[in-house]
Amino acid sequence: MKLLEEKILKDGIVLSGTVLKVDKFLNHQIDVKLICELAKEWKRLFEGENITKILTIEASGIGIACITALEFDVPVVYAKKIKSSNIGDDLLSAKVVSFTHGNTYNVIASKDFITKDDRVLIIDDFLANGSALRALIKLCEAGGATVVGAGIAIEKAYQKGGDAIRNKGYRVEALARISKMNSDGTIEFC
Amino acid sequence: MKLLEEKILKDGIVLSGTVLKVDKFLNHQIDVKLICELAKEWKRLFEGENITKILTIEASGIGIACITALEFDVPVVYAKKIKSSNIGDDLLSAKVVSFTHGNTYNVIASKDFITKDDRVLIIDDFLANGSALRALIKLCEAGGATVVGAGIAIEKAYQKGGDAIRNKGYRVEALARISKMNSDGTIEFC
Repeated sequence: MKLLEEKILKDGIVLSGTVLKVDKFLNHQIDVKLICELAKEWKRLFEGENITKILTIEASGIGIACITALEFDVPVVYAKKIKSSNIGDDLLSAKVVSFTHGNTYNVIASKDFITKDDRVLIIDDFLANGSALRALIKLCEAGGATVVGAGIAIEKAYQKGGDAIRNKGYRVEALARISKMNSDGTIEFC
Repeated sequence: MKLLEEKILKDGIVLSGTVLKVDKFLNHQIDVKLICELAKEWKRLFEGENITKILTIEASGIGIACITALEFDVPVVYAKKIKSSNIGDDLLSAKVVSFTHGNTYNVIASKDFITKDDRVLIIDDFLANGSALRALIKLCEAGGATVVGAGIAIEKAYQKGGDAIRNKGYRVEALARISKMNSDGTIEFC
């Protein structure tokens, strides 16, 4: 999506050639007008899929997910991150191994809100190695829900997490797919 | 606000007479249509105040803040919670003592996004003893911004945090003000 790529080139900052800082518009300050345009694009892409719920993960996915939910006219559920492995009976859970932060945590969601009647669109800001997205898919499937697909703002396509998930048959629509980030701060898109 | 009070009576659950669980519509599953109505009410209340930014705190404030920001047509900034007291030079910070969770943490925001040119509306889901709201006010003032006021979804008015902040001259607009929660699960509004 041209608009998002241009925004990344204008306001994104590449740190040490590996980290893309987008806190000016995506995950600290949020440009809600831009997010509306992303939401409209996901609505176009997933039109006719009878989505009943948007699922995301705290914290940086929540804003994008809520604005997207307005487009689809459905509720949002955000999965919570917990360090404890003590999971209540009323909760769905899945483990995330974060390569970025070098730790492991559980994501949880209430069984009341992800059910067999749901057709879920997963929304998140970033997709890199795919650990968070895999966990959200597991949550849906543990609840018996159908995963319609995932809408991702920025995919680091060179990290292969997205392709591995696509290869398992899931639809992943990333609106900006980065093929390369260079040590001079330049960014290349697929 | 009648609509929110009715929703709390219908879908809120009082646990042990002290905790109000609203995870069906506010802070786990989010009823975005309801939040739109709250946003419109804050827009009406703060009309003409030339608000330039919405400030909230992760995680449960983010969804409400983003939908409210659409009404005001301004960006959102969400303050992050960190346990470290190691604060970078480019960050504003304030300490929060959480009575609810019995711990202390810092909230931070980038100096780039809260500046002397900003007129800030703070948005959050809950106000009880007021520690988070006081910290957000401190962040704004540390950045030289003007605090126009705060829009709160649910205030536990019997906990006095809101009144203490109002008494310091800040405008706090809570859309549902609870005067009492009873051990039989009933809820009374101001």
